[in-house]
Amino acid sequence: MPLRSIASPPSATHGSEAPGGSGAPTLYRQLAGLYEQAVASGSLSPGMRLPSVRELCQRHGVSLTTALQVLRHLEERGVAEARERVGYFVRHPAHAALLPAVREPEVHEPLQPDPQVFAGINERISVFLEKARLAGPGVLDLGSAMPAPSLFDAAALNRLAIGLLREQPDVLVYGPSAPTTHAEFQQAMARHALGFGVSLSPDEIGATHGNSEAVNLALDAIAEPGDVIAVESPTFFGILQAIEVRGLRALEIPSSPRTGISLEALELAARNEPRLKGVVVVPHLQMPLGSVMPDSHKERLVALCVEYGLALVEDDIYREFVESPQPLRPAKAWDRPGEAGQVIYCASLSKSFAPGLRQGWMSAGRWHARVQMLKFARTRNMQSWSQLLAARSVGSPAYERHLRRMRVQLREQREASARAIARYFPQGTRLSLPPGGISLWMELPAGISTSRLYDEALARGIRVAPGAMFSNTGRYDHFLRMSCGMPFTPRVEEGYRVLGELMAAQQRPAAAVAPGAARLGGLRA
Amino acid sequence: MPLRSIASPPSATHGSEAPGGSGAPTLYRQLAGLYEQAVASGSLSPGMRLPSVRELCQRHGVSLTTALQVLRHLEERGVAEARERVGYFVRHPAHAALLPAVREPEVHEPLQPDPQVFAGINERISVFLEKARLAGPGVLDLGSAMPAPSLFDAAALNRLAIGLLREQPDVLVYGPSAPTTHAEFQQAMARHALGFGVSLSPDEIGATHGNSEAVNLALDAIAEPGDVIAVESPTFFGILQAIEVRGLRALEIPSSPRTGISLEALELAARNEPRLKGVVVVPHLQMPLGSVMPDSHKERLVALCVEYGLALVEDDIYREFVESPQPLRPAKAWDRPGEAGQVIYCASLSKSFAPGLRQGWMSAGRWHARVQMLKFARTRNMQSWSQLLAARSVGSPAYERHLRRMRVQLREQREASARAIARYFPQGTRLSLPPGGISLWMELPAGISTSRLYDEALARGIRVAPGAMFSNTGRYDHFLRMSCGMPFTPRVEEGYRVLGELMAAQQRPAAAVAPGAARLGGLRA
Repeated sequence: MPLRSIASPPSATHGSEAPGGSGAPTLYRQLAGLYEQAVASGSLSPGMRLPSVRELCQRHGVSLTTALQVLRHLEERGVAEARERVGYFVRHPAHAALLPAVREPEVHEPLQPDPQVFAGINERISVFLEKARLAGPGVLDLGSAMPAPSLFDAAALNRLAIGLLREQPDVLVYGPSAPTTHAEFQQAMARHALGFGVSLSPDEIGATHGNSEAVNLALDAIAEPGDVIAVESPTFFGILQAIEVRGLRALEIPSSPRTGISLEALELAARNEPRLKGVVVVPHLQMPLGSVMPDSHKERLVALCVEYGLALVEDDIYREFVESPQPLRPAKAWDRPGEAGQVIYCASLSKSFAPGLRQGWMSAGRWHARVQMLKFARTRNMQSWSQLLAARSVGSPAYERHLRRMRVQLREQREASARAIARYFPQGTRLSLPPGGISLWMELPAGISTSRLYDEALARGIRVAPGAMFSNTGRYDHFLRMSCGMPFTPRVEEGYRVLGELMAAQQRPAAAVAPGAARLGGLRA
Repeated sequence: MPLRSIASPPSATHGSEAPGGSGAPTLYRQLAGLYEQAVASGSLSPGMRLPSVRELCQRHGVSLTTALQVLRHLEERGVAEARERVGYFVRHPAHAALLPAVREPEVHEPLQPDPQVFAGINERISVFLEKARLAGPGVLDLGSAMPAPSLFDAAALNRLAIGLLREQPDVLVYGPSAPTTHAEFQQAMARHALGFGVSLSPDEIGATHGNSEAVNLALDAIAEPGDVIAVESPTFFGILQAIEVRGLRALEIPSSPRTGISLEALELAARNEPRLKGVVVVPHLQMPLGSVMPDSHKERLVALCVEYGLALVEDDIYREFVESPQPLRPAKAWDRPGEAGQVIYCASLSKSFAPGLRQGWMSAGRWHARVQMLKFARTRNMQSWSQLLAARSVGSPAYERHLRRMRVQLREQREASARAIARYFPQGTRLSLPPGGISLWMELPAGISTSRLYDEALARGIRVAPGAMFSNTGRYDHFLRMSCGMPFTPRVEEGYRVLGELMAAQQRPAAAVAPGAARLGGLRA
């Protein structure tokens, strides 16, 4: 069946040609090729500034659009990197040694949900988690995508917490009698949302136990057992778990490591699957792909959901990790009142502000009353204490400073990880460097099994997140997610080296593996 | 169909004859009648000590058993009250003016689940809550069964909280990577459980968001949409909500205000309802009845669940509110390993220790692994901070002192409420005084609608909990739950007076109501 495009082609500023596109190289590719050669030959060294857009125009007599395309293309190839408000620079060579990107998805694959692949994620996740638990606490955890405690300003948070206990001495013993979220939290989150382009009334905001409860409540509200929910593929295993535990069926939609879910494939699914009730997307730094959905995609996605009556569950937990001069707007920003509140917006402060609070929130559009009722039936009221801490922090100058500092630290950690991957992991490893976030997603050469690597690494005291955790399709067993949440210490680097060795051993005949593993010892603390 | 008894008749020490039993009065009733007359005539004044068991034996030449029956009967009639280790005393006359007890249930009523009555609790609860929300914060809340903040030692808790933040400065920013409950919390709750006769291994214990999430997870684990869950009737509306939101069907089992769920009726249901998967009970101070299940009933209940393969979900949130010389053992204490872990034990510190923390826990027997998986899929990890606060408090001497003080204060508040009910509520009001807890459950004269009273009272600035919140059967519209969680101030007494007037107005022709209501004004703060 031919795919029907629902929108105009990708805009020039975002576009490079689709992989596999053939024919003569375009002008911008020719020019980019020149600069790439210059880097490869050493004429341009890592860290050197590349010409600006204006300089490229003057030097090569090309248009502004083409000049911009050149720089973007170099960035996508891993040759150049953008520094906010300064310009483009040559990347460290380690990056250039990596293949440029995780492959774009093929959208022509079959989209009919196959019940065979709907079950089993929970058992698989439980097995991985149980193995990690049995391995004990000394393991080097390169699998959990959590920012390290050192990335936060714990002292400032504790001062605020103590101040709050003194100001409201009854806050821990006061049992709220109403089913509502704390009014101060609602107001603070409404202000916060306005700051990133979403206009919400405070009483549309509900507190939740992390983002996870929010997404679960959204699914409770929109679907019944047997219904189908579209998700990005690959996606965060928690979303697949939430779908499975309530007897829903997940339909994995091909997704791009640059722009996220394929809208064409989603529309095809919407036309063909009568039980499709909604779609869950992570628009910003999609987990694990790291994609950031362009605004034009968000707008089209909301329109598509309105047209087909699908609930759009927007899991926006990583928005504040994106390196961007302006705050990014979530799809909820295009969810205009006239379009009946089709977006269920879910967010959390667990990643960006205080992982130990588990403070999430949501705004459920036209499902608001139902979500409120379900929330009350399941976990009732929330801690006022945690809500007040969040309300008094989010959006303050100190909060914004913390985010800026965290983004810089995470960038350094991602880059160090990428260098280690380029150095230690097998030839042919493909990696998209995302514009922010706490993890990297990579495709290893075919034949390497990361499920097997998980066991082998754990035996050596290292925990990773294998591709099989992020899909029910079985397509990602040679993919791997590496956490960059912790400082890149020599111990972490040694972890990458051991992982590279284990991968190399998988590529060699079996006999060669055992002695090496025995000789190398483990990384257990 | 005749009921088959699964156990021996009620023990003599607990038994008085069932209401409506006819024939010649037994010896103990004759004797009790003497003392009741003496109180009514004023020969025995309120507060006077009644004869001890031994004195009764000597004075009247009766057996120990009969003497004990006399005192228990006087207690059940509201004439006498027991004081721990001291003896029996004549109650304040206000109590004696009330009819002695909420009626015992009729166990012959039809037990086949009727789909018509399974739906609607959530809508009903939502309507009540929404009306309360719209009424605003100034309302006198006699409806929410929460202990007032003044019943807790907030200062000591805050000192502990601040000490914890200083001892573990990263506790709010540390994101636990494993799906498990904090080990210190597990150990503390295992010790705590041992103190009330339940032997659990720490790794059988999981932290939850209040008792509510625990009961919800239990239902997730044991049943699928369309299955039937037996509950006490009436029961806490949260249990009915949890059953309804996941497409289960509630089967309400007649329950006694003294001993809780009718085991005979439950067994009848187990034999006749193939989709019955489990039963939810609140063994101690059942909400709203206030019943405390005798140990013999708990033992028989566990045996029955094992025999019929039913999961026993034990919601033990009020255990520590019972006035008892020894800690009461939950049904879980009879759940021996050989019997396959049939009891899912659910508890919380929200009522007894710190309502503002929302810290619950559970031990799910043979459903443990499934519950762990479901918990992780829904709300993932818990705050370490809250778990550590609980772990370091529960079971300490200060904690036990707090409980003793709270029980005394609550008893005073219940007694003051009972006096107000006797004084202001209509003739014919029936009330069982429970041996502890934060609420009273009463049957008003037929013809009074507490759903209507809810609206009328809210218009006067008073919130109550109407009987219709506690059942899907429609049987309890002339029942009422009154909270005794707050100190009995003159404002609270005025609330009772106004409620009594509204009830009296319901008993009069409609024309008489309006002027009175206009004249009396409201109780809004």
